[in-house]
Amino acid sequence: MSRRTGVPVPTIKYYVREGLLPAGELTSPNQASYGDAHERRLRLIRSLLGAGGLSLARIGEVLSVVDDTSQPVHKLLGEVAGAVAPPSAVGGGEPSEKARRTVAELAERRGWSVPPGSPDGDALARTLSEAERLGHEEFAGALDAYAEAAEKVAEADLAYVGGRGTQDDVLESVVIGMVLGDAMFGSLRRIAQAEESGRIYGVGEKGAGRGRGGGGSGR
Amino acid sequence: MSRRTGVPVPTIKYYVREGLLPAGELTSPNQASYGDAHERRLRLIRSLLGAGGLSLARIGEVLSVVDDTSQPVHKLLGEVAGAVAPPSAVGGGEPSEKARRTVAELAERRGWSVPPGSPDGDALARTLSEAERLGHEEFAGALDAYAEAAEKVAEADLAYVGGRGTQDDVLESVVIGMVLGDAMFGSLRRIAQAEESGRIYGVGEKGAGRGRGGGGSGR
Repeated sequence: MSRRTGVPVPTIKYYVREGLLPAGELTSPNQASYGDAHERRLRLIRSLLGAGGLSLARIGEVLSVVDDTSQPVHKLLGEVAGAVAPPSAVGGGEPSEKARRTVAELAERRGWSVPPGSPDGDALARTLSEAERLGHEEFAGALDAYAEAAEKVAEADLAYVGGRGTQDDVLESVVIGMVLGDAMFGSLRRIAQAEESGRIYGVGEKGAGRGRGGGGSGR
Repeated sequence: MSRRTGVPVPTIKYYVREGLLPAGELTSPNQASYGDAHERRLRLIRSLLGAGGLSLARIGEVLSVVDDTSQPVHKLLGEVAGAVAPPSAVGGGEPSEKARRTVAELAERRGWSVPPGSPDGDALARTLSEAERLGHEEFAGALDAYAEAAEKVAEADLAYVGGRGTQDDVLESVVIGMVLGDAMFGSLRRIAQAEESGRIYGVGEKGAGRGRGGGGSGR
């Protein structure tokens, strides 16, 4: 397996000792055989370390959720997504009342259930509070467009996840989708911004006003 | 200004010495007066440190771009966005030929200009390579939905930026939009995923198989 994946033998042994990777089947006192499932798990660990930037301890937590077959899929998905999600860039502190209200109203408009105290709802409210503090509370005006885009992405994520076979496969693809999806969206957002900025400000800086007429898709 | 912003006087002095904040107007040997522009700049620095997680050195670079009025707006926008963008989570290494081709085809389909070697195009290709390495190259199937969502977000970003007054204001809002926008989208994506997952897998786990017609999407 070391040869096939390029991961050194001592590293593989270390993952086994840490409980991240099941032990292989001993074929002789110092030779173990590892199957496809092992190999995929090993690649997943390497990816969470590399692409995901997670610590080994955190990876252990994520995998223990992935491996817990007693829970309903919806719950597992949420837990895996929460474990893999990057910590919010916006620091602690209580969000303002106004920001909380804005989040509640958004949830209402979109038919989302975002109970007070839910980690993502709170993180969103803190981000809006931060915008307020910076004199940019109008940035909240972008919320609905963002939310619509987020629904589109989530739909693609779940369609991808749903196309996988076994539960193991499903949860592994949630991990992949969260980690790589964030990176993918970040790159695409910047490319799209550059395109949009070029359209508005580019070519001799002439179009600074640009219509927006017609773009009112109402939702 | 220290009283109004809650930032201690020695910290303000430190920012002035580091060239991040212009010196105030001396009203007496040990008293300086700071105007609105100072205060907004100070809040911006605090936000880049806090919400943005940037180092003081990096903040200095970003502000020097914001303050360079000799460049066309489109170029400034790109530079500021690039400086503020979080480093890609996906590590180095050369992207695969296939991933490069996928990015080129996407750009073609959407009418984007993504020249080979552009940082965001490369980052995107590296993300796709990573997905391939993990046996998840089909995740690239989500690209168009992601790209469409990214265009929607970029449009909202630029509409926000374009609504600001002075060039200073425009560039400051690019910084805010990049940093807070990433956090905002991250939260919204996870909320929308939970909603979508609930719709598909929730309520007694009945829909676990959901359409996709067998899921046999090749490979």
